[in-house]
Formats: sequence, C-alpha cells, structure tokens
Amino acid sequence: MLTLTSLLLRPARHFVKPLSTRTTSTATTPPPPLTVPLSHPIYLIWSANTSLGKTLVSTGLAASSLLSNRHPRRRSFLYLKPIQTGYPADSDSHFVFSKLTSLAPRRSPHLSLLASNHVLKASASAASSILAPQIPQNHGKGMCDLDWCEESRVDGGNSGNAPNSELVCKTMYAWGDPVSPHLAAERESGAVEDSTLLELLQRCLEIGFGKEKMDSFCVIETAGGVASPGPSGSLQCDLYRPFRLPAILVGDGRLGGISGTISAYESLKLRGYDVVAVVLEDHGLVNEVPLGSYFRNSVPVLVLPPIPQDLSDDLVEWYDDTQNVFDSLMEIMLLAHSERIKRLHNMPKRAVDVFWWPFTQHTFVPEGDVTVIDSRCGENFSVFKARNDDVMIQQFDACASWWTQGPDATLQTELARDMGYAAARFGHVMFPENVYEPALECAELLLEGVGKGWASRTYFSDNGSTAIEIALKMAFRKFSYDHGILLDHLKDNSAERHPELVVLALRGSYHGDTLGAMEAQAPSSYTGFLQQPWYNGRGFFLDPPTIFLYNNMWSLSLPRGLDSQILDLKNLNFCSRDNVFDKSRDKSDIAALYSTHISEQLSKFPESKGLIGSLIIEPGKVTHIIIQAAGGMHMVDPLFQRVLVNECRTRNIPIIFDEVFTGFWRLGTESAAELLCCFPDVACFGKLLTGGTVPLAATLATSAIFDSFIGDSKLKALLHGHSYSAHAIGCTAAAKSIRWFKDSQRNPNITSKGSLLSELWDEKLVYQISSHPAIQRVVVLGTLCAVELRVEGSNAGYGSLYASSLLKKLREDGVYMRALGHVIYLMGGPCTSPKVCKLVLVKVCRRLEELSQTEND
Amino acid sequence: MLTLTSLLLRPARHFVKPLSTRTTSTATTPPPPLTVPLSHPIYLIWSANTSLGKTLVSTGLAASSLLSNRHPRRRSFLYLKPIQTGYPADSDSHFVFSKLTSLAPRRSPHLSLLASNHVLKASASAASSILAPQIPQNHGKGMCDLDWCEESRVDGGNSGNAPNSELVCKTMYAWGDPVSPHLAAERESGAVEDSTLLELLQRCLEIGFGKEKMDSFCVIETAGGVASPGPSGSLQCDLYRPFRLPAILVGDGRLGGISGTISAYESLKLRGYDVVAVVLEDHGLVNEVPLGSYFRNSVPVLVLPPIPQDLSDDLVEWYDDTQNVFDSLMEIMLLAHSERIKRLHNMPKRAVDVFWWPFTQHTFVPEGDVTVIDSRCGENFSVFKARNDDVMIQQFDACASWWTQGPDATLQTELARDMGYAAARFGHVMFPENVYEPALECAELLLEGVGKGWASRTYFSDNGSTAIEIALKMAFRKFSYDHGILLDHLKDNSAERHPELVVLALRGSYHGDTLGAMEAQAPSSYTGFLQQPWYNGRGFFLDPPTIFLYNNMWSLSLPRGLDSQILDLKNLNFCSRDNVFDKSRDKSDIAALYSTHISEQLSKFPESKGLIGSLIIEPGKVTHIIIQAAGGMHMVDPLFQRVLVNECRTRNIPIIFDEVFTGFWRLGTESAAELLCCFPDVACFGKLLTGGTVPLAATLATSAIFDSFIGDSKLKALLHGHSYSAHAIGCTAAAKSIRWFKDSQRNPNITSKGSLLSELWDEKLVYQISSHPAIQRVVVLGTLCAVELRVEGSNAGYGSLYASSLLKKLREDGVYMRALGHVIYLMGGPCTSPKVCKLVLVKVCRRLEELSQTEND
Repeated sequence: MLTLTSLLLRPARHFVKPLSTRTTSTATTPPPPLTVPLSHPIYLIWSANTSLGKTLVSTGLAASSLLSNRHPRRRSFLYLKPIQTGYPADSDSHFVFSKLTSLAPRRSPHLSLLASNHVLKASASAASSILAPQIPQNHGKGMCDLDWCEESRVDGGNSGNAPNSELVCKTMYAWGDPVSPHLAAERESGAVEDSTLLELLQRCLEIGFGKEKMDSFCVIETAGGVASPGPSGSLQCDLYRPFRLPAILVGDGRLGGISGTISAYESLKLRGYDVVAVVLEDHGLVNEVPLGSYFRNSVPVLVLPPIPQDLSDDLVEWYDDTQNVFDSLMEIMLLAHSERIKRLHNMPKRAVDVFWWPFTQHTFVPEGDVTVIDSRCGENFSVFKARNDDVMIQQFDACASWWTQGPDATLQTELARDMGYAAARFGHVMFPENVYEPALECAELLLEGVGKGWASRTYFSDNGSTAIEIALKMAFRKFSYDHGILLDHLKDNSAERHPELVVLALRGSYHGDTLGAMEAQAPSSYTGFLQQPWYNGRGFFLDPPTIFLYNNMWSLSLPRGLDSQILDLKNLNFCSRDNVFDKSRDKSDIAALYSTHISEQLSKFPESKGLIGSLIIEPGKVTHIIIQAAGGMHMVDPLFQRVLVNECRTRNIPIIFDEVFTGFWRLGTESAAELLCCFPDVACFGKLLTGGTVPLAATLATSAIFDSFIGDSKLKALLHGHSYSAHAIGCTAAAKSIRWFKDSQRNPNITSKGSLLSELWDEKLVYQISSHPAIQRVVVLGTLCAVELRVEGSNAGYGSLYASSLLKKLREDGVYMRALGHVIYLMGGPCTSPKVCKLVLVKVCRRLEELSQTEND
Repeated sequence: MLTLTSLLLRPARHFVKPLSTRTTSTATTPPPPLTVPLSHPIYLIWSANTSLGKTLVSTGLAASSLLSNRHPRRRSFLYLKPIQTGYPADSDSHFVFSKLTSLAPRRSPHLSLLASNHVLKASASAASSILAPQIPQNHGKGMCDLDWCEESRVDGGNSGNAPNSELVCKTMYAWGDPVSPHLAAERESGAVEDSTLLELLQRCLEIGFGKEKMDSFCVIETAGGVASPGPSGSLQCDLYRPFRLPAILVGDGRLGGISGTISAYESLKLRGYDVVAVVLEDHGLVNEVPLGSYFRNSVPVLVLPPIPQDLSDDLVEWYDDTQNVFDSLMEIMLLAHSERIKRLHNMPKRAVDVFWWPFTQHTFVPEGDVTVIDSRCGENFSVFKARNDDVMIQQFDACASWWTQGPDATLQTELARDMGYAAARFGHVMFPENVYEPALECAELLLEGVGKGWASRTYFSDNGSTAIEIALKMAFRKFSYDHGILLDHLKDNSAERHPELVVLALRGSYHGDTLGAMEAQAPSSYTGFLQQPWYNGRGFFLDPPTIFLYNNMWSLSLPRGLDSQILDLKNLNFCSRDNVFDKSRDKSDIAALYSTHISEQLSKFPESKGLIGSLIIEPGKVTHIIIQAAGGMHMVDPLFQRVLVNECRTRNIPIIFDEVFTGFWRLGTESAAELLCCFPDVACFGKLLTGGTVPLAATLATSAIFDSFIGDSKLKALLHGHSYSAHAIGCTAAAKSIRWFKDSQRNPNITSKGSLLSELWDEKLVYQISSHPAIQRVVVLGTLCAVELRVEGSNAGYGSLYASSLLKKLREDGVYMRALGHVIYLMGGPCTSPKVCKLVLVKVCRRLEELSQTEND
C-alpha cells in the first residue's frame, strides 16, 4: 500500500563555513527594501505557551492543504521553522516532513508528493551532533552553514510523472540545547541579529514561492510562547514584527489556559498583529466558551480533540479525527487571506471615493497614485504594491509622516503599551481644576526640558495651530498690560474702539491653518480670498537673511534692503555650519547691520496700522513651505533671529517661539531655542511632542505672562480651551517620548554631553549632493535634510517634474519621500540610526546621478 | 518549644442562609460611593498562570510582615482570597493561616500572634462537604453564608497579654469543583455578580483595618491567571479593575515562562494596573534576566529558590531560605505604597505650580480645591481624598469629562486594547494621498452614520474648533462659487477688494476657541478685547426662541421681536417633549410666524455689512455656555432651527451643522440632525467621536461642496490641514465607538428600532426637580440633564454660591458635577445605565431638599 519510494539523507554540502560577517552595504550598492510576497498566504503560528502543539497544528494544516482531494491543482506547502532549539532530538521541521509523508498515502492514495526537510544553519555543537567527524575541534562560536537536507517522494501510482504536490520544510537556525533560543544562542553561537534572521527568512519566502502557478501556502512556526526571546534576545513578537504576517494562535485548553491564551492574544495585538483564529486542545474545560465570549466571536476558536499522551502513538488516528478541524482552519485562513488581498486592492478606490485629503487637489491623485499603507514599524512603512504578484514593501518614511514622527520600532512598541495603559487607566479626564499623573508628569518634563531656564507654566491644547492662537492671546495680554492698554478696556466693552495689535514676523513663516495663526503670516498663496475669506494679515513682516549649502559651501543670502549695505562679500560664506551658529557672530559687523536694519524697519511701521504687540518666529527655521515653485527652501540666519529677539526685548514686546516643528530634537537640539542661545516669553510645541502618535500641543509661558491673567475675575483668566486639553493618553506618550529621546541608554544618537544629537546625515554625501549640477541648495540640520532642485529661470514645472520622477524611483528603492514644489526632503526621527540615514542618502545620490545621465544622453 | 496554645474550630454560626437577593437601592437611600482605604498597603497578587505559587508568596509576605523582629509596633496582616475553587481540599486562606502559625514560633519565639481563618460564603456543595449534616437536600443554587472560622493563638511567652500581632485570613467565596471559578459557579451556585463581589470585598477591607493604630498590610490573592474568569464570567483583571489596586505579579520561571510572564504583565497594563514587582521561582533558566531587560529595570524581578516538589515537605526550610527575598519584596511594596501616598498628597501643590488650566482663574483654585483623579473606570473617576485616613473614592463623572465621554468599563478596556493595537500597527501615518485601514473605516462609518442621506466626503482634523474653521472655508467657497464671486478672485490677488462674507448664526451659540470659530459667534464675555484682541464678530446673529421644562411643563420662550406677534399664549406650552420635536408643528401658525420673522430679519441685514455666506447652527442645541450668571441654559426650539434651514436653503446659503457637542447620541440620536429632520451641507463632529479618548474631528460635506474645490490647480484645493489629520489611533477609537454605541448587542440603551437611546433620566424625578422652588428650568435630552438654579433678580452670586455648596455635597455622595454659572448639569454616556442615572438624580434631589430645608430653617 505505501509507496514511500525514497528517503534520502544527503551529505552536507557547505559545512562548517562560518557565516560571513554582514557588513553595512557600501555606498555603491544599497540593499533592496524588505519585501513580503502576498501571492500566497503566509501565516505565523504563535502559541500561548511552549508545548501546546504548534507543530501538530502546522502538520494538520500541511495535511489539509496537500492531502485533500478537493482541489485538483498542484499545490505546495512551505513550512518554516526559523528557530529550533534542542536540535536534532527536537526538530519540528522533521516532524512535519515525516508525519506528512506517512499520512499522505493513507489520506490520498493517488497523490504524488515530493517532500523535503532542510536545516540551513546550526550552531557548531548542534551540527556536530549529527555530523561529528566533520566538525573541527574548537570551532568556536557563530553559526555554521549546515545545509542539511532529507527528501522523500510519495508516488501515488504515477511514478515517473512530476508529483502533484510539494512539501518543503525548513529549519533556518538550529541549536542543541533544549532551552529558550536566547540562552541556546548565548551558550552555543552568540546572538543572531534580528536583521540577519529576517533577511534569511525573506530569502526562504522568496525561494518558497516559485514562478510556477501553484496553490501555495506557508506557515512560519515560532518557538515557545509569543513573547519568548529569539536568538538576539528580542522577543519573538517584536522580532517578526516588520513582516506583520497574519497570525494563528495556538491556545491553551488546560486549567489556567483561558488566561494564558487571552494574555498571549493581547501581546500580539499590542504589536499590531492580526490574529485570524485560535485553536486549542480540548482538556474537558470548554475554555473555548469564555474565549469566544472575550473575542465577541470576531476571532473563531477551534477545538482539537485531546492529543494522545502515549509517546509511541503515531498520531495517525488523531489526525484522522482532526481532519475536519484543520480543514475548517484552512478555510478560515484561505478566506482571511483572500479577503485581505481584496481589501488591499479596493482601498485606493474607496479612498478616492470618501476621503477629502488636506492640501490635496483631488484631480491630481488618481486611484492608481494612492499609497496603501498597511502598517508602520519604527521609521518604515509597509506599503502594499499591486503587481502581477502583489507584495508588501518596506519604505523609509522620509516625510516622517508629515513631520511628526520620532519612534524607532522599540519605542513604538513601548508607546503602544503605555498608551494602552493610559487609555485603560484614565481614558480621558477633564483637565480644569484637576490633576492626574500623565498631565502633571508631562507639564513638569516640558518645563524641565524645552522650557528650562525661562518657562514656568504649561498650557495644553490639541495642535500647533491652537497652541499658536493661545500664545498670541498670552503675548497680546502681556503687551497690553505692560503698555497700559488694558486699563482702558477692563470693562470689556467690545463696542469701544481699541488699538489694533499686530505681530512682528518673518516673511515666509507659517504658523498653522486656523484663522488666528494664519493672521500671523505674511500674505501668500495660502492667504488669498479663495482660501481664507477672512484673512487680513495682521502683522508687520520682515524679509530675513537666509543660509544654505551650495557647492560645498555654507553661504548667507541677504534680502533686498540689507544686501546693499554689505560690501565685503567674503563675509557671506562660512567654513562650516557650526560657524553659522557660533555665538561670537554677535560681535560681527553683520550683527550691527542687522540691528540697525531692524530698528529702521520698526521705526517705519506706522502706528495707524497698529501696535506691534508680539514677535513670533520659528527659531532655527529651516523650511519654507511653498506650493508654487516660486518659493524655495531656507534656513533663516540664526544671528538675525537673535538680534531680532534682542531688539524686541528692549522694546518690551513679548517674544513667541513657534517650536511646533523645531522642538524635540527635530533640529538636533531638544529645543531650537538652544540653537539661538536666547529665551522667549512664550513657546509653542506640538508634532514630535507625543513622539508622533496623537495630537497634543503645549504653550509654555513665563510667570510674568501667567501673572497678566491673574485677577479677581474669571473674565481675566485665559478663556480658551479644548475638550481634550491635556488628555491622558497624549500626555503619557509625551512623557515617555520626551524622556526616551534624551536618554542615551535608549537613544543611541544622544551624545555623551546630552544636549546634541549626533550628526545623522553623512557629511561627505551631503556635500556631494550640494555640488551636484541639478541641485540649487541643501540645508541639513538635525533630523532634516532638504534639497532644493535647480529651477531653470521661472520654469518651475521642470523642477517639479524632475522631483516627481525622482520620488517615484526612490519609492521603488524603499524611500517614501515627498516634495514641496521643487524641494525634496528627508526626515528621520531623533533615534534614527545614522547608518540608515546614510543608506537613504546613497539611494538619493544614485538616483540623482541616474537622472542626470538620462538627461545628458 | 512550640507554644501553640489553641486551635479552635468554631461551629458555623449563620449557616445555609441563602444570600439575600441584592436589589437596586431604593430612591430614598442611595448606596454610598465605592471607597478604598489608603491608610495601609493593599496589594493584589496576580499570577501569569495557575499553580505558580501565589499562595506561597502571600504566605511569605505575611511572614515577613508579622514575624520579623525589625519593627516593635503591633502589626496586622489581612489575607483575602475572594475566590476559592476546589474547597475545602484546596483552601489558600487555610494554607496561609496554618503555615504562619507554624512558622511563627520558629521565626519569632517571643511573638504573640492571633491568627484566624474565615470562610464567608460557599456554594451548597462546598459547604456540605465540610458540614454535611446541616445541609438540607436539594438546597439548590446560590451561595450560602457559611461564616466558618478557625482561630489560633501563638503565645510567645506572654500569655494573658494582648498579642503583638494579628493575622486575619478570609476566603470570601468557596466552591467545591477544582476548576475555573466561572465553571464552578455555573455548576454549583450560578453566577455571582461583579458588583456583589466587590461590595463584599470592600466590606472585608473596611473591617480589616480597624481604628487601632497598627501597621497593617493586606494582600488580595486572585485565582488562576490574570485573565482567568471570575464567578460571573468577567475576567478577573476586569472584575477587580474599579479598585485599581497596585499589583504583584507572580511570574513563571519555567521554559516558556518569560513569554507567559510578559503577556500577563501586558494584560494588567492594558487594564491600567501598576505592577510593583515580579517574583518567580528559579527553574535554572535565569528567566529574570530577559524579564529585567524587558522591564528596563523599572519593575524589580525577584527570584525564589526552587520549591520542594515533595508534597510531604512542610516548606519550613524553604521559608527560611526565602526570608530575605520576601523581606526585600515587602520593602519594595511598603516603599511603593508610601511613595504613592506621598505623590497623591503632593499632586495638588505641584499642579497649582505648573499647570495653566483653561477657563480657570487660578486665584479661585487654591491647592485644597484641586481634585486628584487617580483613574477612571467607565463612567466613574477614582478620586483621592486626603483625610485622617486617606481614601480613594469613586465619583460618577457627571461632567462626562467636559462633554467628551462615552465608554462604559467594558468599552474602555476594549478601546485601550484596540488603541494599543493601532499605535503598534500604525503609530501615525501621514494622510494626504495615502490610505490606511482605520482612516478609511472611520470615514465610511461617518458617511453611513451621521452623514447618511446627504454627506459624501470626510475631512479630518483635530478638534471641534478646527472642524468649524474648515466647515466655514467649505461653505464660503460654495457660496462664492454659487453666487459668482469666485470668478473675479481666481487670480488670488489678495490686494484686490473682495466682498465681506459673514455667517448667519444664533445668539448664544459657541463654536470653538480659535479665531475663525470665534468670529462665528455673537459678542459675549468671551469675545472682548481682553480675551480676543482680533475678534470682529463676522456674523448676523438672531435671537432664537427656546424651550424648557418648568414646573412639570415644557414651555416655549420667545425673544423680543417675536413675542409681540404671538397672542395666543396657549401655544407656548407642550404636553410633552415629544410634541416639541413633532414634525407636524411645521404646519402650525408658529412655523409661519418664524418664517416671516426670519425673512424680515434677513432683508434688514445691509449688504454693506457683508454677504451672508453661510448658516451655522447647533441642531438640538441645549446648553448655553455662560460665565457670568447673566446667561442661562436653553434648548433652541427645533422648529425655529428647521425653518431657518429652509429659509437659507431657498436663498442658496450653505448650511453648517455644528454637531461637535451634539453628535453621537449626546442628545439621544446618533446625529442631532435627526432631531431637526433636515440635512445640512456641511457638518462638524468631534468630542464623542473617539468615544472620549483622544482628540479627533471630522467635517462632513456633500459632493456639491467638495466639487467647488475641484479644479486644475492645487491652489483651488482646500489648503488647510493638521499634521495628525486622520491619525490612526484616533480613527481606530472612533470606528470602534461609532459601531459600539449603535449596536444593541453592546449598548443596552439602544432600543430595538436602533435610532433612539432609551430615556436615561427618570421622568418622575426630572419633573420633580422642575417643580422645586429653587429651580428655574430644566432641560433633559439624551445623555444630558441640565438644571438651572433660580437666580433672585440680578443676584447672580446667590445662584453660584448655592451651586457651589450643592456640588460640594454631591461630590461627597460620589457625583462629580460642575456648574456653568448657576446651571448645573448631569451628563452620562450613550451606554450609561438608566439605573445609574436614576441613582445620581436621587442624590441630586436629596441634596436639593436638604439645602432648601437649611434655608427655610
């Protein structure tokens, strides 16, 4: 009856070849982005604890997939065991392999099956125990390329023909000790890096699904429980997270197993996994009932009959008994996969039907241009690409999700847990007259951090725009108070004529989209009647001098009005960016000129237009947001900003720093005020404040500002607030992120001195870009690298087209960038590794070269 | 050597008395709020799985507390086992009791210890197995009051004197079957309600800590794993959540135990618990190392030597060996407790030092008036009260955390998990040109729900105020487009003279605090120069007729201009609130009068003041926010709003509904537009949108509105956006909440028809309040019950003082209310039980009576 024709034990082919040390790819050949195929289902098999039967489930799924007679097509099943300890006594891939080959003839007599089992890499000791003579003594640590293989062919009466089906089992890494992988690795091989393991896993997945059209299915079986450490020490639920494969959870049917199953499920959810089904062994306790109730029937719970305890039992009967369970499970998994793919394909259509994206002319975004983002892991998006064979491709989020992002993968996981905790502990708690820990912690951390040395009060709101409106109200009150205006208006007779207050600001600044914040910016494409019917432009706007890198040189560019006064053009260049920020420039001739210029300008502003009640600037201002290519990208000369602050200080005009974008290490220091070396009276923070998770903003103020709202009437208080002021979930994320970013134990970019990030962007590459003929200027500071493409004359279209073609190519390279007109920019987070930034820069350089060459052809 | 003098087995005292069925307290005697003492440490002992040694740890702690010679003071230790299965064979409280009495003489020869062990309630079968003859046959289900007790006195050579120390062990509920409590209860007694169990637990805690000054310590040992079901089927981590006691987690030192320990920890965090320490048995796998690394050393991990496997071992030597571990653990627990108490005491001081609360005159909030909110569980705050003996008291959040709150305890837990998932899966993903599941899901749910029948696009922003600014931009664009204004301004020449656009709005409306939103409201205390230096009031504001309940009657109040036209005053009363909303009123004389009045008003508005470019109203508007007591609380007549909408419709003026407050069942229907029976062109949502967790807002629009932004230029698009637009975490919470609130499986308040909440506020009590002499008016609708106190003449102070004294009393009753001037209000969530609302109303009635009596005296 059995036609088990061959069982081969191949000799090891490439033995005891220590794995070549992985080096960061050189500048010329950056690695392709991590890609997960979606052409066939791939599932992670997790379990609530060790020894709950993950391998039995994998085997059952393999049997259901390969040995069913339902579908006539050729089928293949890939079983991967990335981490195996206790090898070779324990070999789950061998179990699947051998069990399938023995079940095959029984289940499907006419089936031809080619089965193989591979062990790719093993520790020296694990390897030596199967092939002792070939191991040299004292081989030392590291993993060996074992490449061991066994094959078996079940010939269902059609010998000679190609087999109907194929089973490929692979153990990726094997260790001898039957302990947790982190211990086994520590004892036998040393750690295996997560990235190394993931790359091998990706290769296995690519090889697994050939070009041939087969019904393929893959399961990846984890080791131990969901949060058992892998060979690097990372928890496996963290280790596999970049792939975010759908999951099957093998639950626990024993006493106490409800708890273990739910907790394991929650750990998976807390890492962003989708659990498609739970399967558990029946121990007579009907654990599936409370589990079903917990899941509210959104996750099916399947029950397997008791597993024979007798070790000599070959489980053949048990597999007969469980056939319908595994068939159901297989159906669930196939359905979930096909629904997911369908959903991914439909999302762009649904999006263009219902969304109204901000800052987007919808006619320019056809369905095909919509990016489907399946998830984020640290700095990387997982982007769905509909292709002949659909894939999920990782792209570095170089727009740092519109300037909010901070966390690496580790911080993201911890933020998820802590925010879940805050939601469970507080939900939201109304703020006025109350205190609760996250709000207090966050307020104090802000005052000790970005507000250190000047601020004494924290006013919470929801976003940068509201923080600015609050700041303006604070500053104007203080100004009115100091300049004797309030006395006349305390009775709040709004019919009475009151002086018009305006801000002093820099042309090209942008402080948010609500009307109050818009009024503080100079007229622009954003402010016309078409966009802002109520805009007046309530400010006096100065043209600032700017700084940029071009052709390997940092240079100063002066606006009209200032340029004619400076004759010595040598003064306009700097040896390095550090010189730009050097405080000694305060004594330079330029500083004096700035001061005179500002005084002159201020004296020219007619009182009929209003009183200048506040200065508002973005310290270290870097980008100029533009829509028409007529703008550009600028870094305002920090000396000019400092002089401006001093001039206002002497005139008793309150100073607002808009640090919504610049705060929290965006420009390399926790507060950009540090770059200017001077303090404001009021400062606004947002974006990175929560690490880049949820909206929250804070307006910090001095006690003098606060005091101007103190009095014996509620009407004197600041009557501005939002319902979610100081919401606990955002404050929790903020407190965590503020601490994390500046802790050198957590953030390797924090230098020993602690006040400056290490340089993220490779200086050589940045200079190289700055001297590229297609490049107009570069500004690089902190987490930001902005590159302005050269625009020929007024031909803005050229730059834009160039940018769009460039960005398209870079997305294929795994870099998700956006352009502001003809300015393209790269943005990392405070924790982003300089190595990663370098790789991204290399990709940009390569594409720039390529495009230039195309044009030269 | 041993001086174990007595071991008494008392006869059962009150046996086989079935627990009296708990009834909801009657209207006259509402129960006191749930209160947890903080005078002594109380810890929950959890474990990662069953049989990991929770009881051994409890015993070790009891020994460390009672048997150490360090502290001379009298000490007491309370051990509570709320849920015991497998009784009497398994009795953890007996184990602690007997082990301590045997360890005492060995550890502390001179110690006198009074030890007792109690079993309070047992299932009939568990009870019968210890006292068989007394159990009647066929006792049936339910729990018996067993009140069984054993006592032991260890007399350390000072017989006759009072003992130094006391150990009280209590099993609260015992079942016979050695299975999970939910199964045991199902089989033996039927479910025990969570609230019943918690009340008994609270009584045990109160009795446990007497008036006597002793060093007391309490541990409450859970059953099984953290997520094992309790006797009602609720998971224990959910069941005990209202107390939010600090936790000790007994981890798992075995193979796979790292995973189980971490997952259990995460389940506790996801319910808002603080885990103070982890303790686990050594199995030679050094699990404490990866655990320590996971915890980043913020949670200490203690290791116990292997527990003897030999069942005959009396563990005495093991306890000798572990003494230092338990002493360390005890130190950690004592320190954590004292630090927590210190923190709770210091929080008000720190708060008044660093916070700048919105809408708050800080001079009016001395440190002593600051409320310390330790947590929220569903609708209830846990509020810290510094007293002689500090306590944590539960207060119903009747300000529904400033109008945002929705979740009951179950939804809160699920939101926490789902938001954690969203944070882990997405963090934040930039929105424009992208699609990701939560944003898509949320947008579609909004269009199918509150936007059903009219809306086709979802525009996301951060809060109500920004949603309003966006709505205004949308409406003005559409108006300009329809009325031929845009053609002249397409070139966006902002210097060019353009028409002034204004809104049509109702006096007393409030649409948010940013400048644009403020401009849409009539002048008020909020809009003067002192508060809003840039405010102009860009609107034409009508005085609306209002509706209220007074002296058992719903009545209409007309503003000047309308009142003289209506002669028949009988028209001004309604039989019921339903009549107010009845669509047949459209055919009434009043409708015709409204229409004429509005037309007249509109014709009077001079074009020199601008063009009316939009109508903005809050449908079903209920509250009038006031600061000076001069205002009041009103519900605008829905007929008036409907007529207004129709008048604008005929004039081609776009209509905005501000549903930021009213949306999502706040007024009893998912959208308040349903109350008006008419559709807007644009509507704004916020607050309850995320169920009351994080800020998120949406502006919905018709396709006609959307189309007026379509064109061949980006400059024609709506250029307004915020960095966290459509943030994944908020959208996830929103999608969950929107579904939950309207699902009758989840929300028992949803009536079978599904479009209306059941009445939350007891009609009889509401009418009773409305006829109270101290009450001016009442408005009750959906989740809101607002009560305006009578103000004598212009003496606003009276009403305010009265309100403040009333609120103070109500907080003692466990109701956290706020006043808006002399209006006090109660707010529930869409899932809040009418029973709970009734209890709160009863408390309000009682305090009203009490205060009136005081005044009459």
